[in-house]
Amino acid sequence: MSDGLDPADWQTLRALGHRMLDDMFDDLAHLREAPVWRKMPAALRAELHSGLPREPAGAEQVYADFRRLLLPYATGNRHPRFMGWVHGGGTAVGMLAEMLAAGLNANLGGRDHAPIAVERQVIAWSTEMLGLPAETSGLLVTGTSIANLIAVLTARTAALGTAVRTAGLEGARLVAYASAGAHSCIPRAMDMAGLGSDALRLVPTDATGRIEPRALAEAMARDRRDGARPFLVVGTAGTVNTGAVDDLATLATFCRDEAVWFHVDAAFGALAALSPRLRPLLRGIERADSIAFDFHKWGQVPYDAGCILVRDPARQRNAFAQHAAYLRREARGLAGGQPWPCDLGPDLSRGFRALKVWMTLRVYGADRLGAMIEQCCAVARHLADRVDAAPGLERLAPVALNIVCFRFTDATGDLDRLNADIVADLQEAGIAAPSTTTIDGRLAIRAAIVNHRTTAADADALVDGVLAAARATLAGRDG
Amino acid sequence: MSDGLDPADWQTLRALGHRMLDDMFDDLAHLREAPVWRKMPAALRAELHSGLPREPAGAEQVYADFRRLLLPYATGNRHPRFMGWVHGGGTAVGMLAEMLAAGLNANLGGRDHAPIAVERQVIAWSTEMLGLPAETSGLLVTGTSIANLIAVLTARTAALGTAVRTAGLEGARLVAYASAGAHSCIPRAMDMAGLGSDALRLVPTDATGRIEPRALAEAMARDRRDGARPFLVVGTAGTVNTGAVDDLATLATFCRDEAVWFHVDAAFGALAALSPRLRPLLRGIERADSIAFDFHKWGQVPYDAGCILVRDPARQRNAFAQHAAYLRREARGLAGGQPWPCDLGPDLSRGFRALKVWMTLRVYGADRLGAMIEQCCAVARHLADRVDAAPGLERLAPVALNIVCFRFTDATGDLDRLNADIVADLQEAGIAAPSTTTIDGRLAIRAAIVNHRTTAADADALVDGVLAAARATLAGRDG
Repeated sequence: MSDGLDPADWQTLRALGHRMLDDMFDDLAHLREAPVWRKMPAALRAELHSGLPREPAGAEQVYADFRRLLLPYATGNRHPRFMGWVHGGGTAVGMLAEMLAAGLNANLGGRDHAPIAVERQVIAWSTEMLGLPAETSGLLVTGTSIANLIAVLTARTAALGTAVRTAGLEGARLVAYASAGAHSCIPRAMDMAGLGSDALRLVPTDATGRIEPRALAEAMARDRRDGARPFLVVGTAGTVNTGAVDDLATLATFCRDEAVWFHVDAAFGALAALSPRLRPLLRGIERADSIAFDFHKWGQVPYDAGCILVRDPARQRNAFAQHAAYLRREARGLAGGQPWPCDLGPDLSRGFRALKVWMTLRVYGADRLGAMIEQCCAVARHLADRVDAAPGLERLAPVALNIVCFRFTDATGDLDRLNADIVADLQEAGIAAPSTTTIDGRLAIRAAIVNHRTTAADADALVDGVLAAARATLAGRDG
Repeated sequence: MSDGLDPADWQTLRALGHRMLDDMFDDLAHLREAPVWRKMPAALRAELHSGLPREPAGAEQVYADFRRLLLPYATGNRHPRFMGWVHGGGTAVGMLAEMLAAGLNANLGGRDHAPIAVERQVIAWSTEMLGLPAETSGLLVTGTSIANLIAVLTARTAALGTAVRTAGLEGARLVAYASAGAHSCIPRAMDMAGLGSDALRLVPTDATGRIEPRALAEAMARDRRDGARPFLVVGTAGTVNTGAVDDLATLATFCRDEAVWFHVDAAFGALAALSPRLRPLLRGIERADSIAFDFHKWGQVPYDAGCILVRDPARQRNAFAQHAAYLRREARGLAGGQPWPCDLGPDLSRGFRALKVWMTLRVYGADRLGAMIEQCCAVARHLADRVDAAPGLERLAPVALNIVCFRFTDATGDLDRLNADIVADLQEAGIAAPSTTTIDGRLAIRAAIVNHRTTAADADALVDGVLAAARATLAGRDG
């Protein structure tokens, strides 16, 4: 027989697999009882280090190491009191879907097979969710960072023609626009595309964190006078600092009138379209030329699963399709089924991340996901009310969706340092895990409610924890 | 309690999970008995179509649909007689690792947690495997397409300084070089980076498919005379058409003398370093400035899992690190643990693809993986011998590693059409799945032995199948 890697004894590995599954179910069912986060001890970290293993360790031993060295010391984002950054919580359904996908081991770069049909279905559902026309094309990617890069490259090719792909930019002075609250992956996409991050104009926002349409128009007029070529406006649906949603309808009209590409970075905001109550906030998104968002945030799909949608499929193909002899297409057989996903983005090897999205949307249904998202916003509203009512706490930004920024102010001295310490203390104690950001030059405690497991009681625990940590720090300072 | 997505009844979902696991083990243990590939019937494809599901379907129903609509109609690359393109076969160990990773649901963009320590260990093992210095930095990414993009962007920033990230290319005339056999993702990376694919000079190869060093030197001298700025040479370790490996040591010396970045695209070839017999083919790879390769090909890790290594960590950080208020780093707590992986590449949301690589390398050990890779090359050699001995078959390229290109020639008329038909017939019959390519203007049947399950008997089945399909086609033509 072969020297292949299939086990001589399937039964032993199968039994270990069942034990792994039981352990992970136990772990998921009891998340709440564990600390949110534990720092990995240096001694265990040292144990992880080794040279390239030459000899087989066996699955049993490696799994024991996973249980001991890794499982207790993960990011913590599955826990209901993780509120840092913008992390989804995941589900057991997503875990099972990933097992099935890995067992199938499909490569969705191209060829004619069912997994690509599943990805196309997920793109069609996303298109319907956001109100784009049925012919919209798209891809699942790692996340919105790559999705935004695909949008910038598609808009670049639409502006300059496909000649830019062979001839390069040749000094073309393309400029783009986004709000000052836009995510850092937008300037990074401009950087990677060769346009430079300075060619992204960061337009001032109003008091609620939304882009100022008048400032946008002035900036674009100035650039046109200076001989630059505006090609792209990026609207944000859910800024990372405060969750603000730009006035997308006004941006859509402006972009139509100015004949520039209208892209929406809806990294976490897009899924709000599943809630009838929140959906009006996104009005105008259905007029976008492209939309980027993640399923691993509010969609609770396990990492990673981002999505790019492009209204005009020909423009997406123009920016990415290539011809290579070894990727020859045929009318029938495995090499059929055009267009291939590799014609629409940068990847030729593509895992079956569509399966976990397909299973999540089908198992739970869009309405229940929408209700869960509303619940996250209700928890954020509750947290904001608690902050507003608590002596010593000051809220630093309005709550547009699910993000609450505040800080402890009832102390003298360096409040930035104090609040950073409070957050680190809460994390290290495993009580709660908010993150920090800067709002108007002041360090803020930032709680983003993205996890389906988070309840109002968890928000209470955060407020109580912040006050207790502040008191402890101040007592230590005085003592 | 919450409106979260955890099941009210864990036991039912857990039982379904155990059933899924058993089914996938049964499926993997009996792969050989099924056809390599089956086209998804149009009626099932139609069943897959639906509007966005509003109501929950329940996990049981969705899994039943997975079994019926998807499982039988996947790519086929797990099967021992799949020899198309360059697809790994996957393993049950990889499947279990993906289940654990999805259960953990870690985001490896940043922060201080054990999964990032695992990824760093995998990068260190890769560094050791390829002989780079211990301080080498790197990332796991979707695949070599993105890894090559990271290399082009890192080399671009090294050549022009970090000002290119803000100011853009501003007409800089950077040019790069690769062999005419280089993968299409290299010109695509040049395109995405704004340099244009024409700025990649495709240098002629010798009879064995290796880049001609003299032609490279001439091309670069010509560009320098013309005022362009050479900045990058891409060596290929395993061309996709024939598996040729450039003379990397000569390229390394040339790049040192010319002071240009030396990158190696070793998409599938890198893992050959695990075999003492094949390792000498890669001599010189240890002198590269950067190396891109995949674990999902010869590493048999489930899709997707690519890797980029960069010799000088500062240069990789220079090309990607950013500062954003909401990604503020702290000395302690969850926001510690610098540098973060998001400082080294385009992604901020990053799944735990390191776990499946870590488990694969530890469970099997590097020596057994090396032996498996040698076995693939031995099967390819056996296939080449069978082709050479078979009347009616002609081999179209030398066999450097694991790829055999040949075709049926004992017929009159359009041999390209005939051989394309033979391949499609074999695929549609589920007998074997080679792919096609073009060698010196002639359509070739291309068999790449990348799957650990493929044996000499499978190679025999391919040859027998090609001859039978040719006879059947010719008989049909005559009848």
